[in-house]
Amino acid sequence: MKKVVNRVEDVVDEALDGMALAFPAYVRRIPNTNVLARAVPKKGGRVGLVSGGGSGHEPAHGGYVGYGMLDAAVAGEVFTSPTPDQVLEGIRAANHGAGVLLIVKNYTGDVMNFDIARELAEAEGIEVASVTVDDDVAVQDSLYTTGRRGIAGTIYVHKIAGALAERGASLAEVKAVAESVISRVRSMGFALTPCTVPANGTPTFTLEENELEMGIGIHGEPGIQRESVRQADELAESMLDRLSSDLDLNSPARLAAMINGMGGTPMLELAILARKVAHWSQDKGHDLRRIWMGEYMTSLEMQGASLTLLSLDDRLQELLDAPSDTPALRQGVAHD
Amino acid sequence: MKKVVNRVEDVVDEALDGMALAFPAYVRRIPNTNVLARAVPKKGGRVGLVSGGGSGHEPAHGGYVGYGMLDAAVAGEVFTSPTPDQVLEGIRAANHGAGVLLIVKNYTGDVMNFDIARELAEAEGIEVASVTVDDDVAVQDSLYTTGRRGIAGTIYVHKIAGALAERGASLAEVKAVAESVISRVRSMGFALTPCTVPANGTPTFTLEENELEMGIGIHGEPGIQRESVRQADELAESMLDRLSSDLDLNSPARLAAMINGMGGTPMLELAILARKVAHWSQDKGHDLRRIWMGEYMTSLEMQGASLTLLSLDDRLQELLDAPSDTPALRQGVAHD
Repeated sequence: MKKVVNRVEDVVDEALDGMALAFPAYVRRIPNTNVLARAVPKKGGRVGLVSGGGSGHEPAHGGYVGYGMLDAAVAGEVFTSPTPDQVLEGIRAANHGAGVLLIVKNYTGDVMNFDIARELAEAEGIEVASVTVDDDVAVQDSLYTTGRRGIAGTIYVHKIAGALAERGASLAEVKAVAESVISRVRSMGFALTPCTVPANGTPTFTLEENELEMGIGIHGEPGIQRESVRQADELAESMLDRLSSDLDLNSPARLAAMINGMGGTPMLELAILARKVAHWSQDKGHDLRRIWMGEYMTSLEMQGASLTLLSLDDRLQELLDAPSDTPALRQGVAHD
Repeated sequence: MKKVVNRVEDVVDEALDGMALAFPAYVRRIPNTNVLARAVPKKGGRVGLVSGGGSGHEPAHGGYVGYGMLDAAVAGEVFTSPTPDQVLEGIRAANHGAGVLLIVKNYTGDVMNFDIARELAEAEGIEVASVTVDDDVAVQDSLYTTGRRGIAGTIYVHKIAGALAERGASLAEVKAVAESVISRVRSMGFALTPCTVPANGTPTFTLEENELEMGIGIHGEPGIQRESVRQADELAESMLDRLSSDLDLNSPARLAAMINGMGGTPMLELAILARKVAHWSQDKGHDLRRIWMGEYMTSLEMQGASLTLLSLDDRLQELLDAPSDTPALRQGVAHD
C-alpha cells in the first residue's frame, strides 16, 4: 500500500485538520470532534443541514459545508459510520433555532447512528428531521444496506435542500424538497480498480486486467457483476438506460446529470463520459440543463465513475442553480 | 491498460467536446480546432490570455478558460505540444484588439510551437507577448526541457495575470505581472505510481511497492531520484524546505501554497499534506494567506502530488483573490 499518510490511525484526524487549515474562511473543526462546521454560521432562525458518513469519500461531506449547502459534516473513520455522539455534535453545531435536517446515505450503520443522534438531540430540545438517500439503482440490498445505497446523488440533495434552507424555509419545507430530490435522483457506478483502506493495507477486491466491476458502491464493496472493459460510450449508455428506466423517463424530461469520478479517474476520461451523457440526452430528446463533472463523492483512489440523473422541475432547477460557496462547490460568481 | 475511453486516437477530441458540452456557459470549442475559448468573450479592448500544452493535465488548461483567467486554451495530444497552427487559432480567438499574452510552460516543444504561432499572429497584425513558466525546482534540465520545467505554478500565473487583464491593463502590464508571479513561484512534485498514455498502453516508468519518484514532472517523465516511501509530513517538509530555499525565504514571508493532486490521489491525502503545509508555515513564521488544495495540473491517473509556494505582495494577493468564473476555478461568490 502506497499512500500519502503519516500513521494510518491518524488519517481522518489529520485530514479534518487539513480541511480546516486549507479552508478557514469556510469551515472550522469543532474541537475534540470529527465535525466540520461553517466558519461563518448561517443566520439565526434558519434550518441547519447536517450530513456525514465514513471518510474516504472526499470532498464529501466536509467540502460541502458552507453557504447554500451544509451547516455541519460529521466524519467517521474511513468507510465507517460516525458514532451517535459525533453526529450529535454536528446537530448542535448546525442548530440555529429553526430545527436541523439530517441528510443520511442509506447504509445500516449511518441510518442507525444518525437516528440515535436525532433522539439525543430531541431530548435536548432541538427539533430534528431526517431524510435517507438511496439513489443507487445497482443493488436492492447490499453488504451494508437494507434497500438501495446512497451514493453521489446525495450531493444534489445537499445543494437543493441547502438553497431552500438558506432562504429561511421551515424544517418541513426543507425536508419536503429533500424528499422530492430523493424521489427524482438515480445513480450507478463502476470501477476499473479497487481501493485500499489505509488501516487494512490491501485492496478491497481484485480485478483482472480486462475486467471492470459494475454497480459498485462507494466503499469498495463488490458490484453486481464483473464485465469485460468496454468502450466508454457503451458503458455510459448502458448505465444511462438503466437510470432512465428506473426514473420512468419514457417521454422527454428536463434533467441534470452528474459525472462523478471515484477518486483516481483522470478528468480527461470524465470529459469523455460527459460527452456521451450529452449525446445520449440529445438522442432521447431530453432537455439536459446542467452537467456537473468532477469528483463529488469518491472512494479513495478507486478508478471508475458514477453517473447520476436528476429529473428537474422549475423549482428544483432554480434551487440547483442557486449560489453556493463551499470548499468543493462554488456557484454564482459575481461578474463585473 | 484500463481507461474510460473509446478509441485511443479520439481521446483528446472527445474530451474537448465533453468539456464544451459540460460547461457551455463557460467554454465553446472553436470548430475544427483543439481550442476551447470563452463562451462569452471578454470585453473589447482588453488583453487576451492564451495557454495550453499537451493534454492529460486536466483541468489544465481548458478548465481555466473564463472570466478572470484565460481567453483560450489550446490542447495538444496527450503529453504532446499543440501545433503552431492550433496555437494561432487560440490567439485569434483571444484577440480582442488589445494584444494577446501567451502563458507557456517551459518545454522545448511548447516554447517552439507557441513562438512560431506568435510570429504567425504578428504577421496578421495581432500584438502578441509571451511568458515562460519554469517553476519546477527539481531539475535544471530534463528530458523535455532546457532549464526548469513549468508545472502547477502556472495556474497562479493564469489567475493573477487574468485578473489584471480583466481590468483593462495593457499588454505590457499584464506581461509584467505574469513575470512577477513567475519570479516568485516554485513547485516540486513526487509520484507514488506512474501513469499510462492511452496511445502507448504501458506505464511511463515502474516503481517498486516501497518506492516513490521524487521530482517528477507532469509527463510521467522520471524524477530526480527514487526514494523509499516516507510519511507524508516528512515528505512535505523536505519539499517545502527546498522550495523556500530556492525562493530565498530566509525571513518570514507572505505566502500562498498550492497542494496539487497528480490525478489519482485521494483528497483525503491532499488534506493531510495541506495540514503539514500550514504547520510548516507556522513553524517558520510565514504568513500563509491562502491554500489552494485540489487537482489543478494533473498527469493522467498518476498518484502523487506537487507543492507550490508563491511569495505574495499586496498586489499579487489582491489579484489572486479577485473573482474568477471558470469550469475549474470559481471565486468571489455573492452572498446574501
